[in-house]
Amino acid sequence: MEKRNNIVVIGGTACGPKAAARARRCDPQAQITVVEQGEDLSTATCGLPYYVSGVIDSQSDLVARRHDFFRGVMNMQVLTRTKAVAIDRKAHKVEIFSLETNRVSDIGYDKLILATGGIPVVPDLEERHLQGVFTLTKVKDANALRNLLSPPESRKAVIIGAGLIGLEMAEAFTSQGLEVTVVEALDWVLPTLLDSEVAAYIEKHLRRKGINLLLGQHVIGFEGDKNGWVRKVITEDTEVETSLVLLALGTRPNTSLAQNAELTLGSTGGIVVNQYLQTSDPDIYAGGDCVENVNRISQQKMLAPLGSTANKHGRVIGTNVTGGCETFAGVLGTAIAKVFDYNVARVGLSELQAREAGYDVVTSLVPSYDHAIYYPNGKEILVKLVAEKSNNRLLGGQVVGPGETAKRIDVLATALTFGAVVDDLANLDLAYAPPYSSAMDPLHNAANVIRNKQSGYAKALTPMEVKNKLENGEDFVFLDVRSPGEWETCRIEATQVRLLPLRELRAKLDELPKDREIVTFCQTSVRAYQAQRILNGAGFESIEFMDGSIAAWPYETSG
Amino acid sequence: MEKRNNIVVIGGTACGPKAAARARRCDPQAQITVVEQGEDLSTATCGLPYYVSGVIDSQSDLVARRHDFFRGVMNMQVLTRTKAVAIDRKAHKVEIFSLETNRVSDIGYDKLILATGGIPVVPDLEERHLQGVFTLTKVKDANALRNLLSPPESRKAVIIGAGLIGLEMAEAFTSQGLEVTVVEALDWVLPTLLDSEVAAYIEKHLRRKGINLLLGQHVIGFEGDKNGWVRKVITEDTEVETSLVLLALGTRPNTSLAQNAELTLGSTGGIVVNQYLQTSDPDIYAGGDCVENVNRISQQKMLAPLGSTANKHGRVIGTNVTGGCETFAGVLGTAIAKVFDYNVARVGLSELQAREAGYDVVTSLVPSYDHAIYYPNGKEILVKLVAEKSNNRLLGGQVVGPGETAKRIDVLATALTFGAVVDDLANLDLAYAPPYSSAMDPLHNAANVIRNKQSGYAKALTPMEVKNKLENGEDFVFLDVRSPGEWETCRIEATQVRLLPLRELRAKLDELPKDREIVTFCQTSVRAYQAQRILNGAGFESIEFMDGSIAAWPYETSG
Repeated sequence: MEKRNNIVVIGGTACGPKAAARARRCDPQAQITVVEQGEDLSTATCGLPYYVSGVIDSQSDLVARRHDFFRGVMNMQVLTRTKAVAIDRKAHKVEIFSLETNRVSDIGYDKLILATGGIPVVPDLEERHLQGVFTLTKVKDANALRNLLSPPESRKAVIIGAGLIGLEMAEAFTSQGLEVTVVEALDWVLPTLLDSEVAAYIEKHLRRKGINLLLGQHVIGFEGDKNGWVRKVITEDTEVETSLVLLALGTRPNTSLAQNAELTLGSTGGIVVNQYLQTSDPDIYAGGDCVENVNRISQQKMLAPLGSTANKHGRVIGTNVTGGCETFAGVLGTAIAKVFDYNVARVGLSELQAREAGYDVVTSLVPSYDHAIYYPNGKEILVKLVAEKSNNRLLGGQVVGPGETAKRIDVLATALTFGAVVDDLANLDLAYAPPYSSAMDPLHNAANVIRNKQSGYAKALTPMEVKNKLENGEDFVFLDVRSPGEWETCRIEATQVRLLPLRELRAKLDELPKDREIVTFCQTSVRAYQAQRILNGAGFESIEFMDGSIAAWPYETSG
Repeated sequence: MEKRNNIVVIGGTACGPKAAARARRCDPQAQITVVEQGEDLSTATCGLPYYVSGVIDSQSDLVARRHDFFRGVMNMQVLTRTKAVAIDRKAHKVEIFSLETNRVSDIGYDKLILATGGIPVVPDLEERHLQGVFTLTKVKDANALRNLLSPPESRKAVIIGAGLIGLEMAEAFTSQGLEVTVVEALDWVLPTLLDSEVAAYIEKHLRRKGINLLLGQHVIGFEGDKNGWVRKVITEDTEVETSLVLLALGTRPNTSLAQNAELTLGSTGGIVVNQYLQTSDPDIYAGGDCVENVNRISQQKMLAPLGSTANKHGRVIGTNVTGGCETFAGVLGTAIAKVFDYNVARVGLSELQAREAGYDVVTSLVPSYDHAIYYPNGKEILVKLVAEKSNNRLLGGQVVGPGETAKRIDVLATALTFGAVVDDLANLDLAYAPPYSSAMDPLHNAANVIRNKQSGYAKALTPMEVKNKLENGEDFVFLDVRSPGEWETCRIEATQVRLLPLRELRAKLDELPKDREIVTFCQTSVRAYQAQRILNGAGFESIEFMDGSIAAWPYETSG
């Protein structure tokens, strides 16, 4: 009988079980062993915030597959409550330690798969060991939080970190009746994902939902009570009373095993893998949260600790350890989260990331309804696109709001995968019927705004640029071209503001100064751009419209 | 003063106003005239089914822009209730006839834009002029229908044609309390859009909603009462009593003006345009429902009478008549409709269309939930992909079901635009969080099924192939690998069926015959494929799984 391929998988959350199952389907004869520290395989850790909030009721819902499935159906050896201690690359074996029996043993491998995941980042503060200070990466963390929330003795929570999990948990805690403060060291929420003006749009929503946001503030300590429970979070500027703290600072790759085995690590902290997901040792593959990925846009290395990436890694590895040849092309940094009633999604490079990577960019910021305006229950979304100025290549997008955003981000992700330029996006034959979209989808409109800018028809300032001009007391006309009724409902207060409805503009051109800069705005920029073109046509020279207008204005309004 | 560019637009629904508005923004000095037979410009005819159903309440909601907007803001001449009678290409003028004054006059043009739309196809039957026989392409058609429905004197409706509008109207009439029969000459609903097994999945839903479907039946006549009202629809096989008839046989391009001016028409019946949307006369452009388009997949000419295409045409034309140079790359045949509680969407070539166009194809048919299975309120969708067998290039897709389908079709449309192969689709970095999708999106799974087939791991039969085998009384084992509980709830009745749950399969291999064909199935094919691989691994040779399994089985079940 032929020698059976001996495959050992370390880590049983997402990439590991996927790689093992794929390997089994590709090679029915292989000997496959999965080593997992916890009790379960295939735990849906992405569901933890919803398990804490109670949206997902039962812990068992989070476990996709039981052990007996892996053992009986998949014919694997499953070693749970077992820790991989060391890799002997030369001898092709792994030292393991059973948490059940406290015994050490060895298992040999032909191919080894590292799917060791991530470990939560915790601040370097002594008081982080106080009771009531949590991280959330495992079901047991979620259970500890649930126990604390029910009966609801904790009435205040501080979340440190305004990333995806931080904001998902802000909603989860709020839904449990807690008063929530989110502290973020950087200046806006989701700082590694969104540009500041898009983040500001989310911040408005968070504040409306009662979240206390402390942005740009470093936590310097916690204070506990005499029983050792955390009671206060101390930042450079202030103190916040609390009954629990959630550290939501993200994860870092769990690489100690790889590092001790002298596998190459990257500057991101993740294990270096090639396109076949092989580590620096060709018999050892790695995938999931413990490796570094390539950003398909910038070609820079990045971490992408997401279940979606981990599963794709798993399939590639499962194929390759059984003699196949599949590649993983990299990631786009795609992300989405439900933040209360908003859908927050992004892909590719933000404007800030693009500029930092050295691109000269052109952007658009376009609010619109998510389906035909005449079909009921349309909801607003805000689309920001980022493209390379010299060649119109799309670099990234952000789509947020109460309306449908996942579809638009997935379209952008697909377009980015193929190196789309803005014109490609503008011409996509997307599915149209009134309940689903407008004849011109928000993405088409956002692409066309960039085309209008690139062709010189449209000239725009961002809301921040206008805000700066207002704050510096610059002399310009800030021309609101909406109707008086809209102005009554909601308006920007500044001495530079003047109301002149679009319908009256052609008749009242001589009331406007030809020698001063005019910045037009309306509700969504459609009329503001029209006004700009009318003024251009009438010989006005220094005219811009404000990108996104009132709908994207993240600052104060009256009315 | 420079001579002003004189632009005349014929047709004021979608392409025409868009072209005019774009031309205005590109050239503030141009003289622009829009000629429209009806009373309004920019009517949202796509909304008509929802206006009939009452989902859209007011006629005025369907008119995006008033005349005074086009006149006052856009500075155009708007001639409504005016018919273009003839084009004098040599003299560069159009003869027009005012329905108000009954007077004929001429208007000159530098550039002429034909946006004459479509006209409803009506059967060549004398009795089609009976009262109560409708088409639905204009607001006045919808108003006539609404008047008939309220007070609800009509209690039965027959819709002729099971295309998009036919099925949207089936829902609209049902919501108004009518008993609805849909008659379709071809053998399945949405016959130009879906393959038969996907259509069968929709047909099940339509029947559950009380729709009487008469498929594969030609209408040969109507019968009226003594007052001249239609009372009966007669097909080759049967007669159906009714109080109204809707002819929903689609539209054909309205080309009489172009034809009389000897512009070139294509074999589809549409006006031939080049990529700049110029007709055979370079000073005459055409767009919207009256032109023929290029299918980006097959490169064949096709009609694409949709508001989304018309608007994109309008922008291209508006740019080009004012000195710009923009191209229209063609369409993908993307379509979507709400059919009661189902979202029905498709793009590219169906399997049938692909085979007719000469492609050798590989397909997948994959039912799954539209988001993470552990997150509440997931709904089923059925994904069918069609790819070219020799090179894995995607040719088309169909996504239908109660769950989210628009996103998946738009991703496929984007992928098809760039000539994606199946592997590209499988690796797309789509946005993942439990409320929006699964770690592996249904599209990823559907792509991976094709990859598994192409690599020889997966062997499948379609539900129709299995149905044929059953009907022919073939000798094979039709192996249900679900649990006994699932079998109780819903099962396929046939002597070939045998229940052997996946969990017991490895232990009971010797109960299965090695010398007979075995076709495995489960609920969604995941376990069926697993079973196929287990049997392959145990030396069984003639094993397939049934694509889509029970969830995609469009025929009878018991339980």
